[in-house]
Amino acid sequence: MKQPATGLASAPTIGVFDSGFGGLTVLQALIARLPRARYAFLGDTARLPYGSKSRRTIARYAIESAQFLVREQGAEFLVIACNTASALALDAIQEAVPVPVLGVIEPGAQAARAASRCGDVLVIATDATVQSHAYAAACNARNLRALEKACPLLVPLVEEGWTGHPVTAEVIRIYLAELNAEATARNMNPDVLVLGCTHYPLLRPLIEAAVPPGVRVIDSAAAAAEAAVHLFNGRAAPAATLDPEASSNTAADTEIHCFATDSVEKFERLGSRFLGRPVGSVKLVDLGG
Amino acid sequence: MKQPATGLASAPTIGVFDSGFGGLTVLQALIARLPRARYAFLGDTARLPYGSKSRRTIARYAIESAQFLVREQGAEFLVIACNTASALALDAIQEAVPVPVLGVIEPGAQAARAASRCGDVLVIATDATVQSHAYAAACNARNLRALEKACPLLVPLVEEGWTGHPVTAEVIRIYLAELNAEATARNMNPDVLVLGCTHYPLLRPLIEAAVPPGVRVIDSAAAAAEAAVHLFNGRAAPAATLDPEASSNTAADTEIHCFATDSVEKFERLGSRFLGRPVGSVKLVDLGG
Repeated sequence: MKQPATGLASAPTIGVFDSGFGGLTVLQALIARLPRARYAFLGDTARLPYGSKSRRTIARYAIESAQFLVREQGAEFLVIACNTASALALDAIQEAVPVPVLGVIEPGAQAARAASRCGDVLVIATDATVQSHAYAAACNARNLRALEKACPLLVPLVEEGWTGHPVTAEVIRIYLAELNAEATARNMNPDVLVLGCTHYPLLRPLIEAAVPPGVRVIDSAAAAAEAAVHLFNGRAAPAATLDPEASSNTAADTEIHCFATDSVEKFERLGSRFLGRPVGSVKLVDLGG
Repeated sequence: MKQPATGLASAPTIGVFDSGFGGLTVLQALIARLPRARYAFLGDTARLPYGSKSRRTIARYAIESAQFLVREQGAEFLVIACNTASALALDAIQEAVPVPVLGVIEPGAQAARAASRCGDVLVIATDATVQSHAYAAACNARNLRALEKACPLLVPLVEEGWTGHPVTAEVIRIYLAELNAEATARNMNPDVLVLGCTHYPLLRPLIEAAVPPGVRVIDSAAAAAEAAVHLFNGRAAPAATLDPEASSNTAADTEIHCFATDSVEKFERLGSRFLGRPVGSVKLVDLGG
C-alpha cells in the first residue's frame, strides 16, 4: 500500500483527513499556499457522518485514518480538515501519531480574533460541530464572544450542486436572519461570521451577499491553510521546500493522491467542486469497522 | 435484555426496523391497522445512512438489527421499514431469522399496480434507493413502467422540521417539474407517484399540492402496513388477536418499545413527528460495529 513520493523527490507529504470530501476545500487552500508539497487526502466516507457518533467512536475512526496517512502514505504533517473530528478528537490524534497535527477550529477562531474589532463573532456550522461548542470555546479563549448556529440544510444543498441556486440563497437568508435576531436579543454586535464547515466555502458568494454590512466572512478552511504554512515552515519542514515564494511549481503541478473508504464514485463526481480542479482517480481503502 | 410482552398477554410482537427513525411512519400506519399488537422499533442510528454503504455491509447491519428484534424482543414478525435495507438486504434478512419478514418496496409497487390505469408510474426516493432500482424492478415485474428520481434534499428538509415551509414547497415543485419533464421526454403518461422513502409521508400535503391533476400519490409506508395486515393474519398470527375489527383496543393503548443504537436524543426529539404521537423513552442498544 505504501506509495512513496514520486516526481518531487524532496517534497514533504502533507496528509489531509476528513470524514467526507468537504475537506477538499482545505486541500485547495493548502495547495494554493504550498504547491510544492505532495498531498495525500483521505475521506472516511464509509463511516460518515461523524456528527451522530460518540466522541470515543469518532476518535477511533480518526486515529485509524490518521495512521493510514502517516504509515501508508508517509505523511509528515497532518491537517484534520473535518470540524467534528477537530472538535472531538484532535488531542487523541495528536497522541496517536508522531507528526504535527493541525485542526481547523483553532485557526478559524484565531482568524476571527484577528478580524474582529468589537469582539462579537457569529459561527455557522453543522449540528454536531455546534453541539460540541468547540468554536465557542476557542473564541472565548481569545476574549471573543461567539454565537453559534447549526445550518443543517447547507451541506445537502451543496451536495445537490445548488451552490448558486435561489432556494439556497433563501435558506441562507432565513438562517442568517434567525442568527442575527438571536445576536440582537443577546445585545451582541457581531462584525465577523465564521464558516465552520468545510462545505460552506462553496456558498461564500451567497453568504457574503446575505450578511449585514460591516460583517466580515472568515473561512476556517483558508485559516487552517494559513496556519499550516506557519506551523510546517516553523517546524519539521525544510523551509525552502515549502515556501511558495521559493517554488517554481504552480498549483497545477501539485501531486495529489485521494483515498476514500467507500463511495468512490460520489467522491470523484462531487470532489472537483470542492477542490476547484479534477480530483483524478480516487482509491478505495478498507480501514475496517 | 429480553423484555417479554406485558399487558396484552396474547398480543403478538411485531418488530419494525429502520436505519434511522423515518420508519416510524410505517409504525404509525401499522398501529392504525393493528392496534392490539405489541411493537418493538429499532433505529440503527449509529450506522446510518445505509445508502452510502455496500450491499454486504448493509446486510450485516440489517441482520444484526433483525436478530435483536427477534431474539431480544421476541418479535414474531418483522417489517423492514427502510427502503435501502428492503432494496438490498431483504433476502439476507429472511434467511437469517425464523419469522416472516416484510419490506416496503414490494407493497409500494403492488399499491402502484392497483392504482394505475395507464401503467406508467413515478417514484421519488433517496439517492441510494434510486440507484438500487428496486422500485423499477418491482414495478416492471407487475407490468408497470417506472421512472425513479432521487430527491436528496427532502430528508434534510423534513429533519429540519420544514414540512410545511415555502422553501420545501419550492424544492418539491422543482423536483417534480424535472421528473415530469423526463417522463414527457420518454413518452410516459404517469398517473401514480410513489413516495419511496419513509420520510416523505410528512410532506404528503405539499407533494399532493404539487403533482399534476390526475396523479395519485401512493405512500409505501401505508402500503407496507396494509400488506402486513394480510401477511400476518394469513400466516402465523391468531387472526382474532390481530384483526382490528375484533379489538377493543384503540391505537392510544398500543404498547410500543423504541430502541436506537445512537442519537437517542435526536430520536426522541424528532420521532414524534414521524409517529404522530410521543415516542416515549428510547433505549440505547449496542449492536457493535
